[in-house]
Amino acid sequence: MATTYAIGIDLGGTNLKGVVLEPDGTQRYLERVPTEAAKGSVQVMANMVTLVRKLVDDLGDEGTVCGVGIGTPGFVDEDGTILGGAENIPGWKGTNMFTPVTEATGLKVTAANDVTVTALAEARYGAAQGVKNMVCLALGTGIGGGVVINGHVYKGTHGMAAELGHLTVETPGLPCNCGSSGCVEQYASATGMVKNALIMALKVPVHDRTECAREALSAPDAFTCKRLYEFVEAGDPWAVSVHEFVCDKLACGCGAVINAFAPDMLVLGGGVMGSGNTILDEVVKNIPHYCWQQIWERCDVKLAECGQDAGVLGAAALAFDELCG
Amino acid sequence: MATTYAIGIDLGGTNLKGVVLEPDGTQRYLERVPTEAAKGSVQVMANMVTLVRKLVDDLGDEGTVCGVGIGTPGFVDEDGTILGGAENIPGWKGTNMFTPVTEATGLKVTAANDVTVTALAEARYGAAQGVKNMVCLALGTGIGGGVVINGHVYKGTHGMAAELGHLTVETPGLPCNCGSSGCVEQYASATGMVKNALIMALKVPVHDRTECAREALSAPDAFTCKRLYEFVEAGDPWAVSVHEFVCDKLACGCGAVINAFAPDMLVLGGGVMGSGNTILDEVVKNIPHYCWQQIWERCDVKLAECGQDAGVLGAAALAFDELCG
Repeated sequence: MATTYAIGIDLGGTNLKGVVLEPDGTQRYLERVPTEAAKGSVQVMANMVTLVRKLVDDLGDEGTVCGVGIGTPGFVDEDGTILGGAENIPGWKGTNMFTPVTEATGLKVTAANDVTVTALAEARYGAAQGVKNMVCLALGTGIGGGVVINGHVYKGTHGMAAELGHLTVETPGLPCNCGSSGCVEQYASATGMVKNALIMALKVPVHDRTECAREALSAPDAFTCKRLYEFVEAGDPWAVSVHEFVCDKLACGCGAVINAFAPDMLVLGGGVMGSGNTILDEVVKNIPHYCWQQIWERCDVKLAECGQDAGVLGAAALAFDELCG
Repeated sequence: MATTYAIGIDLGGTNLKGVVLEPDGTQRYLERVPTEAAKGSVQVMANMVTLVRKLVDDLGDEGTVCGVGIGTPGFVDEDGTILGGAENIPGWKGTNMFTPVTEATGLKVTAANDVTVTALAEARYGAAQGVKNMVCLALGTGIGGGVVINGHVYKGTHGMAAELGHLTVETPGLPCNCGSSGCVEQYASATGMVKNALIMALKVPVHDRTECAREALSAPDAFTCKRLYEFVEAGDPWAVSVHEFVCDKLACGCGAVINAFAPDMLVLGGGVMGSGNTILDEVVKNIPHYCWQQIWERCDVKLAECGQDAGVLGAAALAFDELCG
């Protein structure tokens, strides 16, 4: 009997990435096409159709594709309509993602928020394999959340669940794009960490500034989260104090997540976690200050394992779950 | 064909309340026995067995009982073991709730946290009928949460989900029993509201104190949330300022809940909400400051409708869902 495959698509700012996946997680074909976000929603969807066709052609008569899963930034409704987010693509809000793909290829399509599919990837093929209930936080430019309940994604009404970057962790706090303030994203995303570093650096008297604080203030636009953590690793005391502050805020957000979902596992991923155990260890040390001990005792915290492939893996897993019954 | 009934038990501090329920929510028999919490876990379970037997006797040969559902304070694991909470019952932690009932009656038993079953009651028979995803906050002495996803309760790992009274809404904030501080429970529960009223009253110069502030400070132990809202209704300006402050904190917690779960509906219940639309209206006014507009636009907020019967109704509904397939 021929194997049934799913296609997973990861809609990124620069590239559309796609995979033909076997049910056990084996990647058979991987393709990329430019997203061309600036050209608007019609072009982006045309590129997505091109990508799906490429993958179908790659597979040829080796097997059949049972469906296409898409991971997308922002909110996507059950019928494939984009309800918001991804404002870098003109005309994106209101676009239907399913119709062009189905019309061009005859394939059934499903979609979810990109961090939601990342969570599913970790649950199916990564750090949280075999785990029943898990939450994933992706720490990048912002902070996104994804929730897996009983082994399946929880999308929430209209696909909007798990906006976990917008849990309050400081009052009064830094203003946030979401309209609120003090959101964990303003402290523990890459941009949030840099912003807090600069604010904290300005409060240090000139002659007390460490090498890291001086570097941050001399070229604020060039200062990055990665650079901050190079100083943390080197023991720069001011960098360490920034690290401790932002990780405490992240721990507060993680505590809220654990109190709300009582997951078996919390997975932390995204570019910020690239520094590995330094952040993880500090966050794990502080989480107990922010949630019930009995829940915390039963919750693991791990680094994400699927890396750059999480999006396509999770999107294909979503297709297997929802379209390949 | 004889109707199949479920028994629902609500374990309260004073009474154990039980109902024989038809699938459509019709209450056939209602019984109460004293909880006798102070006598410890063995006595409480003996009383529960007595209550279940009474209800089975009441029904006689009118029909069959397919299972018993229990709503209990604290955390209850899948096998019926109490993992924590309800510290007013000596020996309660470690108690198994299922075994004594099954041994005495032959009936299958299930259980969940009391606010979790309240949420199910509202979803099945109350304010959130027909709603797919909903969250319930019960504002009483503390604040509890319950979550219904796809029409069924979400218990979380080991039955610990939805500790939504412990979302952070102020930093630095009032210390909380959970070990954290600034939890929404410290502001918007009945005790939290009174505590904040007293703190705020003490900050008002003696000669500027309104009638409400004077009354609160002259007999702090007698001052209640209900009394505060009598002054709010009468237009006492200081009482109104307390009301606005605590409702803003509640709105912050509600915003976090909406961002996390993207529910179709948030139901607010418990004794605090007895004052009705005054609190509801103020909270609804402030929630948009604390969550994504696109999620908020798609989420209703309603007062709970099941009242004192929510516990038994939800517990019986849980039995129907889990034991009467």
